Amino acid sequence: MGWLADESGLEKCAANHVALTPLSHLKRAADVFADRTALVWKTTRLTYAEYAHRVTLLASALARRGIHPGDVVATLLPNIPAQAEAHFGVPACGAVLNTINTRLDADTVAYIFGHAGAKIVLCDSAYIALAEQAIRKMDGAAPQIIEVVDHGQTASGHYLTYEELLEKGDPGFAWLMPQDEWESLAINYTSGTTGRPKGVVYHHRGAYLATMANAVAWRMTLFPAYLTIVPLFHCNGWCHTWMVPMLGGTVVCCRDITAKAIYDAIADEGVTHFGGAPIVLNTIVNARPEDRREFSHVVEVFTAGAPPPAATLAAFEPLGFNVTQVYGLTETYGPSTECLWMPDWDGTEGAARAELKSRQGVRMAMLEGAEAHDTHGQPVPRDAHHLGEIAMRGNLVMKGYYKNPEATAEAFKDGWFRSGDIALQHPDGYLQITDRAKDIIISGGENVSSVEVEGALMKHPAVNLCAVVAKPDDKWGEVPCAFVELKPGQKVTEAELIAHCRAHLAGFKTPKHVIFHDLPKTSTGKIQKFELRAVAKLI
Amino acid sequence: MGWLADESGLEKCAANHVALTPLSHLKRAADVFADRTALVWKTTRLTYAEYAHRVTLLASALARRGIHPGDVVATLLPNIPAQAEAHFGVPACGAVLNTINTRLDADTVAYIFGHAGAKIVLCDSAYIALAEQAIRKMDGAAPQIIEVVDHGQTASGHYLTYEELLEKGDPGFAWLMPQDEWESLAINYTSGTTGRPKGVVYHHRGAYLATMANAVAWRMTLFPAYLTIVPLFHCNGWCHTWMVPMLGGTVVCCRDITAKAIYDAIADEGVTHFGGAPIVLNTIVNARPEDRREFSHVVEVFTAGAPPPAATLAAFEPLGFNVTQVYGLTETYGPSTECLWMPDWDGTEGAARAELKSRQGVRMAMLEGAEAHDTHGQPVPRDAHHLGEIAMRGNLVMKGYYKNPEATAEAFKDGWFRSGDIALQHPDGYLQITDRAKDIIISGGENVSSVEVEGALMKHPAVNLCAVVAKPDDKWGEVPCAFVELKPGQKVTEAELIAHCRAHLAGFKTPKHVIFHDLPKTSTGKIQKFELRAVAKLI
Ligand SMILES: Nc1ncnc2c1ncn2[C@@H]1O[C@H](COP(=O)(O)OP(=O)(O)OP(=O)(O)O)[C@@H](O)[C@H]1O
Ligand SMILES: Nc1ncnc2c1ncn2[C@@H]1O[C@H](COP(=O)(O)OP(=O)(O)OP(=O)(O)O)[C@@H](O)[C@H]1O
Ligand SMILES: [Mg+2]
Ligand SMILES: [Mg+2]
Repeated sequence: MGWLADESGLEKCAANHVALTPLSHLKRAADVFADRTALVWKTTRLTYAEYAHRVTLLASALARRGIHPGDVVATLLPNIPAQAEAHFGVPACGAVLNTINTRLDADTVAYIFGHAGAKIVLCDSAYIALAEQAIRKMDGAAPQIIEVVDHGQTASGHYLTYEELLEKGDPGFAWLMPQDEWESLAINYTSGTTGRPKGVVYHHRGAYLATMANAVAWRMTLFPAYLTIVPLFHCNGWCHTWMVPMLGGTVVCCRDITAKAIYDAIADEGVTHFGGAPIVLNTIVNARPEDRREFSHVVEVFTAGAPPPAATLAAFEPLGFNVTQVYGLTETYGPSTECLWMPDWDGTEGAARAELKSRQGVRMAMLEGAEAHDTHGQPVPRDAHHLGEIAMRGNLVMKGYYKNPEATAEAFKDGWFRSGDIALQHPDGYLQITDRAKDIIISGGENVSSVEVEGALMKHPAVNLCAVVAKPDDKWGEVPCAFVELKPGQKVTEAELIAHCRAHLAGFKTPKHVIFHDLPKTSTGKIQKFELRAVAKLI
Repeated sequence: MGWLADESGLEKCAANHVALTPLSHLKRAADVFADRTALVWKTTRLTYAEYAHRVTLLASALARRGIHPGDVVATLLPNIPAQAEAHFGVPACGAVLNTINTRLDADTVAYIFGHAGAKIVLCDSAYIALAEQAIRKMDGAAPQIIEVVDHGQTASGHYLTYEELLEKGDPGFAWLMPQDEWESLAINYTSGTTGRPKGVVYHHRGAYLATMANAVAWRMTLFPAYLTIVPLFHCNGWCHTWMVPMLGGTVVCCRDITAKAIYDAIADEGVTHFGGAPIVLNTIVNARPEDRREFSHVVEVFTAGAPPPAATLAAFEPLGFNVTQVYGLTETYGPSTECLWMPDWDGTEGAARAELKSRQGVRMAMLEGAEAHDTHGQPVPRDAHHLGEIAMRGNLVMKGYYKNPEATAEAFKDGWFRSGDIALQHPDGYLQITDRAKDIIISGGENVSSVEVEGALMKHPAVNLCAVVAKPDDKWGEVPCAFVELKPGQKVTEAELIAHCRAHLAGFKTPKHVIFHDLPKTSTGKIQKFELRAVAKLI
């Protein structure tokens, strides 16, 4: 390969090689942007010098409390400054950050505490009961609780508080920078939509490159004002807390996601960027008039988790927002493809615009490949018709699943990460997801997209929410089986809904059973179809 | 360090690790931006699909001609498409690119041919004579000439042309991607200002990270239109050709740097960014009225090599440009610090603005450190007074000097790259260069900045150009000795100039000798003080 005839003296050394790590971004910001505002939350306003100082105290205090390099430190925190500080302070003492979803039940939290083996958990006062309950359910060693007392909260009085912890830190502590960029930085548990949450391990290199990928994809320049709507416990908030210091920007915290909080942050703090699920867009669309605020710039919004519905886009963008759909998984540091808007599309409005924006798009700059693969691992034709599983490859793919080498090997078979998402590819290469692999129904040898059948059901005025799964069938192999929640006060029969679907769908796609039933959801609101499949099998 | 208790299954594999290389940017662009314009030169307009196709042909044809991985391929080319194509096509067959300054004399070209050991040189028709002359002066094996025939040129008829070479390429050739990002990508020879040019080796990792650093520093978002004023043979055009595909942008070629060419490119191609020495800014300021064109956007201009003079800035920026000074060396992939403009400075005009913009600034995002060090390797106080040598550290520092492990070890002593530039550091950390280390004069134990003395001399109306160097002196150790070129028709005596200086400078800074003499310059126009020092010693 590309080695010169004489490579003597051209080895790595301290002068010309440093392990890539997001810690470098904050180190530089603390110097270059020392007096600029790094973090805003209510009356808290930290400059970069102050932010880095608090990170130093946290790292030092954790080390003094016995946290060694490679140990795990968990958090149960909303998007408040302590959560952002933990993103730097935990790795700055060589430890691995495990941000836990605060909406999880105690059983799952107990499972994660045990599986990741956290020694300490930084826990918001509002989640002390959850942490305690989880700890009671554990068999093995439990993490020590450090209580983070937010503005307006009262400490429980039972634990060392976060501020007391920081007081024990040494302001002269030298951050432990990774020696190898493959060292572990964070463990993030997947949402548990398709089964038990898996512990996804991130390394310093990947997180660093993700900060670049996101800045490029988001067309971010220096000094963005970033509002933390995506929970930092979700893929580390898509790595955005690590990214913002690279650009000297400001992280504006948001604990409760309300339309008023968002409008105020835009108008008062000049927020330029935020990310969020499509539901957040709806929250803004449906804001009460008294919660709305005037602003004159265009706010750039990343949305993920599902495509932004056309109606949402039509109502949302004219309010002063530009929406870019991104797609990714916990396994890809959050977003790894983007529905990149081409300049030639400018002027496309209405349905055509919504259709373009409904696609999951193309790989981000730091990802080596993202394409839909057939069952032989070959790319499907780019004809907007053939379906395949989205496969990704490159430096934005996780290190692997923690303590699960089998699942890791399975996910990385043949040199690609297999996402479990089924998509078609448009002639221009843009991916469009049709379903999860596990959710697709194979009826009489034909693929049925559960998403498509759900779309037909949702058109019925009585249907509030629904999920369609496969039910084993002697004749057809599988048949679609629908679970439906009705709108309050509405009535409709199974036969009526089946007839409604038949009017909209091919016969083999029409559900053969409709069950009126509450839908089981993950803590992030995704429907857990694996539970419904178990029900469908039994009836 | 940050290794988890159980790292089983978390190793690198094809799915989650790819060597960083700028080749990836073009690969992605060929897919994602296939139909967008990649390269523009006169009647040539290449889409990304076509650009990548030609790169594939070049890589394949070079391989078929016997170029093996690790071999060196040189170019003697102006900023035309073949030069951009070589930036990808040469590494895509595993070879190392050596772009040679077309303004060099035949002796130096012969030296570089021999030292780098190029097997092939891609040579513009205008430089065939130079290449032939250089080859005649060589002892060892000489490179094969491939003639690049630009629009409007006629082939010499003696060599295979570039287009003929490409015809021999296989469009299905698979690019050789580096397996290790430390593999060599390019060799760039320094300007030879302080002595013989040194061969600086770049690796794929550094060039990749430099593309990110420049995009961030330059506040570039998607789809820039980049004008190639900085020669691509100068630090590979600051890595900008490698960067532009990451952003789906367009490289607009510029063979001869005239005000008309620049204005036309801005008005006709919508150029948004270019880099250039301060002299380029002057060229635009002094444009004839008929060469000027209207445009409505602000063009972002990077300038390096020397601070932009206040008078230049005052005349240039109001024409529709925003200037950012950057600083770097061949050894740092081009720019590695930038005079980052802080938002709080907005509104600063005139002399105050020029003074801020005259500073070399702070390290770019991908550089780990840049500071002025005293002779003990300690950072100097940030007091705008103490002088030190600029030292840099991190992933934007070269791999080393080719076939010169001693010079490499010397440059990398103590874990920092020592730039040879002397600077002070302002309280906000911004570096300001006062002189080159080799040019500083130590008189009676006091440091005298040659640049300061030159500044005083330049204030004399008769002086056109000057250079001040150290002359050994029995009493003072060294004394300042001035070499002066007068303006046409002007006269002034040595005594008059010494008196003039004494009125502006402390006694020990005043030149003790003034010699009226032509100044020796490098091919890039920098004054070669080492030659003047030799003269000063003798007289
Ligand atoms: N823009 C999007 N459009 C459609 N689906 C999306 C989009 N972004 C993310 N997703 C879905 O979210 C999934 C990633 O979510 P996450 O990593 O949080 O956990 P999960 O896959 O829901 O849970 P688990 O892996 O535990 O089953 C993707 O695999 C995809 O199904
Ligand atoms: N913005 C700037 N302001 C002042 N000087 C600059 C600036 N940018 C670059 N330079 C000068 O240019 C030098 C780098 O130039 P380059 O690498 O082309 O070769 P050189 O140092 O002139 O030649 P050689 O190393 O062969 O003597 C720096 O060391 C510095 O002296
Ligand atoms: Mg998943
Ligand atoms: Mg030099």
